[in-house]
Amino acid sequence: MCPPNAAASLSCPSSSRRGVLRFGLGAAVAALAMPLGQAQAASVRRTSFSNVADLTHRLGTQFPLFPGAPALTITPIVSHDTDGYYGSVVNYWEHSGTHMDAPIHFAKDGLFVDQIEVQNLVVPAAVLDVTAQVLRNPAYEVTPDDIRAWERRYGRLPDNAAVLMASGWGARAGSTEAFRNADSSGVMQFPGFGKDAIDYLLLERRIAGIGVDTLSLDHGPSTTFATHFTLLGTNRWGLENLANLEAIPPSGATIFVGAPKLAAGSGGPSRVMAVW
Amino acid sequence: MCPPNAAASLSCPSSSRRGVLRFGLGAAVAALAMPLGQAQAASVRRTSFSNVADLTHRLGTQFPLFPGAPALTITPIVSHDTDGYYGSVVNYWEHSGTHMDAPIHFAKDGLFVDQIEVQNLVVPAAVLDVTAQVLRNPAYEVTPDDIRAWERRYGRLPDNAAVLMASGWGARAGSTEAFRNADSSGVMQFPGFGKDAIDYLLLERRIAGIGVDTLSLDHGPSTTFATHFTLLGTNRWGLENLANLEAIPPSGATIFVGAPKLAAGSGGPSRVMAVW
Repeated sequence: MCPPNAAASLSCPSSSRRGVLRFGLGAAVAALAMPLGQAQAASVRRTSFSNVADLTHRLGTQFPLFPGAPALTITPIVSHDTDGYYGSVVNYWEHSGTHMDAPIHFAKDGLFVDQIEVQNLVVPAAVLDVTAQVLRNPAYEVTPDDIRAWERRYGRLPDNAAVLMASGWGARAGSTEAFRNADSSGVMQFPGFGKDAIDYLLLERRIAGIGVDTLSLDHGPSTTFATHFTLLGTNRWGLENLANLEAIPPSGATIFVGAPKLAAGSGGPSRVMAVW
Repeated sequence: MCPPNAAASLSCPSSSRRGVLRFGLGAAVAALAMPLGQAQAASVRRTSFSNVADLTHRLGTQFPLFPGAPALTITPIVSHDTDGYYGSVVNYWEHSGTHMDAPIHFAKDGLFVDQIEVQNLVVPAAVLDVTAQVLRNPAYEVTPDDIRAWERRYGRLPDNAAVLMASGWGARAGSTEAFRNADSSGVMQFPGFGKDAIDYLLLERRIAGIGVDTLSLDHGPSTTFATHFTLLGTNRWGLENLANLEAIPPSGATIFVGAPKLAAGSGGPSRVMAVW
């Protein structure tokens, strides 16, 4: 189930639908004809909740994009006055807004977004508050010590956790300039996960994925995308441009990752909600 | 909060963001700059779960569409071999695949998809099994009696419920011809909710929305779309092309409706998951 280049010591989430990977869209569509209910229900961590919060930014045509990404367009094609109803055609680059990076985005043999098992989309959240560190250094990288500090306070990371960086960056999402925060050389200065933290999470803990409230899992100055390659190479997912992480408890919430179930997708705009 | 034409006796879900409705994309984007956490956490029905199921069809370019709808396209624009990573541009009509109809889709003053409160997206599910009725009549319309029969067995519909029609139609989703099921006159023959059932749900119960496993909330032969107009006109939502409804309990599940948080959206492909 792991990509061939993954270290043997890393445990990889499995996918019972791995077999369709090499056949692309045709097989994915054919799979729709499978008997319903098959491999669709799964057990997850026992959870109770009575609160819900939205971790998703509203996605409009002005939402900040990673430099070079194609623009989002929203084109109404029917209207109440002319047609009696309203609706649009939407054209998006998969990595727009609050969105998922599926393993295939960086790992050549990784899972497509529609192949991620549903039990890896409903998972306990651990929120690492690095606001103070980021005030001192906007290009801060989350470290293993940040994770150990969380564990000293809240206990060992739960299995299959989503480890989420809360850096305060979401408040900048109304401005592309502020969200990218490029310096005078054009180098973006925003925080992300350091590769050491990813190694710790992959080697010492069992996680489903990570999330950030910035444009990238790697910090802004990265040119090697080591965090992307390392994390996605073990079939874990990443979430970028999360909103509102300050509003949920650091420990004890469960997140629902409403990733698009798009055939052969590399990820896509996702509705992410937290309950606790 | 209700559209002006809604009967006064119908209770309408509220939206604290109703004020941005008339200002379209500009105001929606400006709203991103609001302080985070504001109006983002809400209380919902107390829920416990340890099972999860996916109610979403995989969406590929061959997934059946309502006649006349623009085709979905998925265009890879970067590749591992050439660019070192993989991703696509996706072009979709909002009412493709497992998707939401937001109130604005048929109600001129209804809520856009991004304006639906999150507590109306995490709601108890009631699954009406009408498989037997549909075997006798493929254009069956769910009746108030179907709802009363459910209530005799499982108790009164919970407040803020999603009432979901399980007709067995999801098994046809691999074929546009079978899913549309047009007769020799070209009239589609698939089941949906009758207007009487909608009136009952709006006047006698409090619901968040309804869902079907077919192409339309109204049954195939409809030309008036009475169910769409009546339901969406009270700011409730609808879900179409749901999958796998047979796999979840008729009573006791909670659904997460991962609708896209798209500015000025009329709905859109949604990741829907059930927990219980």
